Amino acid sequence: MPGKYRRHFDPEWETSDPEFLRPKLEERLRAQLVYTYENSPLYRRKFDEAGVDPSGIGLDDLGRLPFTVKDEVRRTQEKTPPLGEHACVGWEEISRIHASSGTTGKPTLVGATICDRQMWNELVARSLWAQGVRPDSRAWVALSLGWWIAGLQFLEGLQYLGASVLPGGNTEPARSFSVVQETGLDFVISTPSFVQYLAGFARENHIDLKSLGVKNMGLGGEPGAGNPHTRRQIEDTWGCKVYDCMGTADVCTVVWSECEEQDGMHFMGQGFVLPEIIDPSTGSPIEPVKGATGELVYTAIWRECTPLIRYRMNDIIEVVGDAPCSCGRTSYRIRCLGRADDMLIVRGVNVYPSAVADVVRFFRPRVTGHIQIQADGPGPSVEPPVRIRVEYGEEKDLNRLKKEIEGRIRRELIFASDVELVEPGTLAPKGNMKTKLVVR
Amino acid sequence: MPGKYRRHFDPEWETSDPEFLRPKLEERLRAQLVYTYENSPLYRRKFDEAGVDPSGIGLDDLGRLPFTVKDEVRRTQEKTPPLGEHACVGWEEISRIHASSGTTGKPTLVGATICDRQMWNELVARSLWAQGVRPDSRAWVALSLGWWIAGLQFLEGLQYLGASVLPGGNTEPARSFSVVQETGLDFVISTPSFVQYLAGFARENHIDLKSLGVKNMGLGGEPGAGNPHTRRQIEDTWGCKVYDCMGTADVCTVVWSECEEQDGMHFMGQGFVLPEIIDPSTGSPIEPVKGATGELVYTAIWRECTPLIRYRMNDIIEVVGDAPCSCGRTSYRIRCLGRADDMLIVRGVNVYPSAVADVVRFFRPRVTGHIQIQADGPGPSVEPPVRIRVEYGEEKDLNRLKKEIEGRIRRELIFASDVELVEPGTLAPKGNMKTKLVVR
Repeated sequence: MPGKYRRHFDPEWETSDPEFLRPKLEERLRAQLVYTYENSPLYRRKFDEAGVDPSGIGLDDLGRLPFTVKDEVRRTQEKTPPLGEHACVGWEEISRIHASSGTTGKPTLVGATICDRQMWNELVARSLWAQGVRPDSRAWVALSLGWWIAGLQFLEGLQYLGASVLPGGNTEPARSFSVVQETGLDFVISTPSFVQYLAGFARENHIDLKSLGVKNMGLGGEPGAGNPHTRRQIEDTWGCKVYDCMGTADVCTVVWSECEEQDGMHFMGQGFVLPEIIDPSTGSPIEPVKGATGELVYTAIWRECTPLIRYRMNDIIEVVGDAPCSCGRTSYRIRCLGRADDMLIVRGVNVYPSAVADVVRFFRPRVTGHIQIQADGPGPSVEPPVRIRVEYGEEKDLNRLKKEIEGRIRRELIFASDVELVEPGTLAPKGNMKTKLVVR
Repeated sequence: MPGKYRRHFDPEWETSDPEFLRPKLEERLRAQLVYTYENSPLYRRKFDEAGVDPSGIGLDDLGRLPFTVKDEVRRTQEKTPPLGEHACVGWEEISRIHASSGTTGKPTLVGATICDRQMWNELVARSLWAQGVRPDSRAWVALSLGWWIAGLQFLEGLQYLGASVLPGGNTEPARSFSVVQETGLDFVISTPSFVQYLAGFARENHIDLKSLGVKNMGLGGEPGAGNPHTRRQIEDTWGCKVYDCMGTADVCTVVWSECEEQDGMHFMGQGFVLPEIIDPSTGSPIEPVKGATGELVYTAIWRECTPLIRYRMNDIIEVVGDAPCSCGRTSYRIRCLGRADDMLIVRGVNVYPSAVADVVRFFRPRVTGHIQIQADGPGPSVEPPVRIRVEYGEEKDLNRLKKEIEGRIRRELIFASDVELVEPGTLAPKGNMKTKLVVR
């Protein structure tokens, strides 16, 4: 990557030998645990109950700390509004509060101090720099701006990086296209669903997406960009490179991002967050070596307002690379396989719905790419044949298509399926940000 | 105003004797004019054509500089997209671009460098501090977040001031109420129309506005908060104090704001912008003494990206106070009377539609408060009786009401009117941000 700018936003944290970073991480971990113990009633209780002295914990002792789960955060916020008993600061120190949409009605809240926002800015800058954004880039923020952390934080992180921000948001496509046709554009940050919606809007309004000049596009919030078929389709439509990235409101809007190699998402949170991979059933740690799969767990080590310790993400990931990347970054790389509570076990074998979707999407345009798995009970175990609804696309012989999809699933995923072909449009997401791959 | 914080955000600029500030303003004006001449093709041409040497201009020579009008900005952006020939920096220096909605289709754009955003932050912080916001305040930003400058800039200015920002935006009232009922709330920044909409939403959803704890509310974007009847109604509904404020995308989202005295909007842009008042017909300057009315003109003196020199605002204002205010601020105070192109001349007397609305609103609840003046031609001159459509409210005897309104208009505004009473709902703004008071 030649040019007038350096290759990495923060070379020290991004490209150092992990052994070199170790003492710093250990120091930050200990400081965070002591701070959290002293300021958060929730963690004081949890650590005391687990018999853990926070000042005595090192990187190798993470497993001695209790997990925190999403539901715990929800309950502590209901009991002690607004931020819950893991909050460590008062109103005077809080700079911004974000709110998740909350599937059960009441939103869960995340607070940030000025220092927390600074950490968010650093993380956004590292990730988007890896996606090709530079101080002379023009970046369209095509995300909901408001309660959802992603929009505002990508906007502020882009400004922090030095880019020119075009704050389009996701509510005014006509005005946004009108502006970016005048300004030209290097970069878009959005979700796969929304850029696909924008592409449809552009088609209907005779806007030539390729004339906008987009070179790179960062997509997160849902798995789409990690799927090779979806990615290729978006890249072809917009004439740009697509980068998958991933984070969470509770920690930071982006913690993982692809680099120019587009070969899995690098961990980008060095110095701010410790990631772990655990077995979702037993909770025991899994080494982040190539091919390993498991549930993501985060521990804050640089957080003031609402730190979370060993926070279970409910995201199942696969490590796709652990050797140094040719981009120069030293962190391992992952892709997201789906949500832990979407995971199925078919005769003892873990099956991730996104893997099923990947296989089905191979058949495009004979299928639209939308699928839905119908599990026969609440648990992860399902009896084969697994019932899968698939939207057909440009296909005349539905019987042949059904047989071919079932055959490929058997070959690639080693389980028997019963494919039901349904009309195009039946399963496409309807206005939701995220697609539901499994119904029970 | 007792308490742990000081009274003014920036005591030096806000409370100094104007004579003390004069040499600094003069220095900034000269630096801005030289910078703009050197970097903007538009201003180089305009100054050359006017025979002005920018390095020789002092505060008393402002009148030697040519005006800039809105249409000129629009045309220069069409000719030299995206920002036009008054832009002084390139992409590398641009931090954010905002876009007006543009009544004629194509949006006009405003750019800011990091230093320009810093100036915006200072101005927001001064104004909202005057409205009672402090670092321990919880502030709901109930404004469109995106292309419109106000939302994002109030949000960033509030963070800069140190307040806790609740980034509600204007698209998710249900989620916003759900969050602020958990967090409690000290301050709302919004538009009169939107808080009236929110009040209706709260009523329908059985939300008790007064239980939220709002103490102060800043309203801008349209005149409403400057109208005593509208203000009182909003204050009664929300149980808080309302502050009028005013700015413009081209200069800063807020340049004028009321203080705790709520007696007209103080000029808040000291050190960043020079305001002038001119006669809208002749362009000659008018002294800012109590009772003076005229059109606002701004000259940037601290702007990098898109500076505007002697920019005619098309806003007609009245100076309501020029003596030092008991809040300690030394700048003069204004209220907005309406747009210059809405101004009417009835037998040689200037009539501002907002003044007519003020008189009519005295009759609430017998009227709803919505009016529309029907001018009989394109020019400002109209022949009496002036036709005014008025929405009646809780009134049985429409004939008597008509006579009473006409009588009061004659007494207070010294012209003859012909009031047509129309059904409630006929004239209320329909989804628009701003109300159209005059039709021709």
